[in-house]
Amino acid sequence: MAKRPRALIFDVFGTVVDWRAGVAAEAKRVFDAKSIELDPFDFADAWRGEYQPTMGRVRSGGRGYVPLDDLHRENLDIVLERFGLTDRLSETEKTDLNHAWEKLPPWPDSVPGLTRLKRDFLIAPCSNGSVALMTRLAKFGALPWDAILGADVAKNYKPRPEVYEESCRALRLEPAEVMMVAAHPDDLDAAQACGLMTAFISRPLEFGPSRIDDPQADHHVGAERREAWNIAAGSIEILAENLTT
Amino acid sequence: MAKRPRALIFDVFGTVVDWRAGVAAEAKRVFDAKSIELDPFDFADAWRGEYQPTMGRVRSGGRGYVPLDDLHRENLDIVLERFGLTDRLSETEKTDLNHAWEKLPPWPDSVPGLTRLKRDFLIAPCSNGSVALMTRLAKFGALPWDAILGADVAKNYKPRPEVYEESCRALRLEPAEVMMVAAHPDDLDAAQACGLMTAFISRPLEFGPSRIDDPQADHHVGAERREAWNIAAGSIEILAENLTT
Repeated sequence: MAKRPRALIFDVFGTVVDWRAGVAAEAKRVFDAKSIELDPFDFADAWRGEYQPTMGRVRSGGRGYVPLDDLHRENLDIVLERFGLTDRLSETEKTDLNHAWEKLPPWPDSVPGLTRLKRDFLIAPCSNGSVALMTRLAKFGALPWDAILGADVAKNYKPRPEVYEESCRALRLEPAEVMMVAAHPDDLDAAQACGLMTAFISRPLEFGPSRIDDPQADHHVGAERREAWNIAAGSIEILAENLTT
Repeated sequence: MAKRPRALIFDVFGTVVDWRAGVAAEAKRVFDAKSIELDPFDFADAWRGEYQPTMGRVRSGGRGYVPLDDLHRENLDIVLERFGLTDRLSETEKTDLNHAWEKLPPWPDSVPGLTRLKRDFLIAPCSNGSVALMTRLAKFGALPWDAILGADVAKNYKPRPEVYEESCRALRLEPAEVMMVAAHPDDLDAAQACGLMTAFISRPLEFGPSRIDDPQADHHVGAERREAWNIAAGSIEILAENLTT
């Protein structure tokens, strides 16, 4: 059995929930009502594509901390413009669509895995989503968090070290007592550099079935890097088995 | 039925949990092991008695924000000294005893009341306890919070307005959409001054049976002040009935 942490903190978008299916479902609902013919998965991918560049300006100090809810809304406007849809949706409809990020289905193993981990450990999201977003997402998917940590606590975005450090500090634990769980190598590398334990969860479907065989996709990360992390598992349930048996 | 909020935030010590019974139980365990003859309830009352003055220095700006865990530990040293017990406990035993505040039993109506409220509303503590303290206390008592808010979010102590304001902001709600729930009139008055809705929960046993008839006790607050709040109820279950039926 691997060394046991006292708390586990989780990346959420992609690791715990299927953002692509959730955003596409909400986009489809809105587009169908307006007879807009656009593949909702293409729309979800384009919206998510703006995610890293927008946060980059906050991370670099070029812009103060803005909660992800507001960045999502700015990116929605960018993407609607790109698809020529700016005038097809009212302000109310855009605000409604922006709440798509609060309605993302958990991967099938997430709730059983978290429920099992919660018996023995403190569990919390360490996401770039705000407390408001993560709280509503937890309610939507019945994610049994003990607390909500992440970007809002540090007023900055992962992979900046202060996000991991402040999340540990909020629990009054040393980084070495906390395990970061994520499907994204850069997130784990940054947490490891701060002294946290790390667990990789493979999520081959995060970017849709067409990316399953993409050798650049996160789930194809090489054996050497996987071995640098404390655990690599195919699901949160398997992670829980690893830590609790 | 009263106007419905979108979220309810709760005072915790005294309102949701019985701090006096919990601290006394832990003190008794430690004292018995060392053959210390001191009424553990007297000890709990003395320890709690240092609570408001210590936070006062932070509220007034005379001292930067220090998490309640650390203030409790400073106050423990003060109270042990007063009872002539400073040298009777080791550092490890003092640290252990300080965790008493994470092991406080919920009042019998708290978990059923919160569970019912959670179906329809966001629920979170808005306590002077830290995220770490509130998270462990929730685990101990199975309190089903959606998020952990309060002093740590604002880096200051109630009844300073920023604690209520920052807790609402973390949920991206207007103060008028949030209801503060507390057994303490000053807490409700401060929340109301920030624009929050308010619910009073009567807790006649907070300071023990000898205080039940004390006309100065919080649960004897007059009808006029009670009527200034949105709801006054004898338990969190009754509050839930009031808001959900």
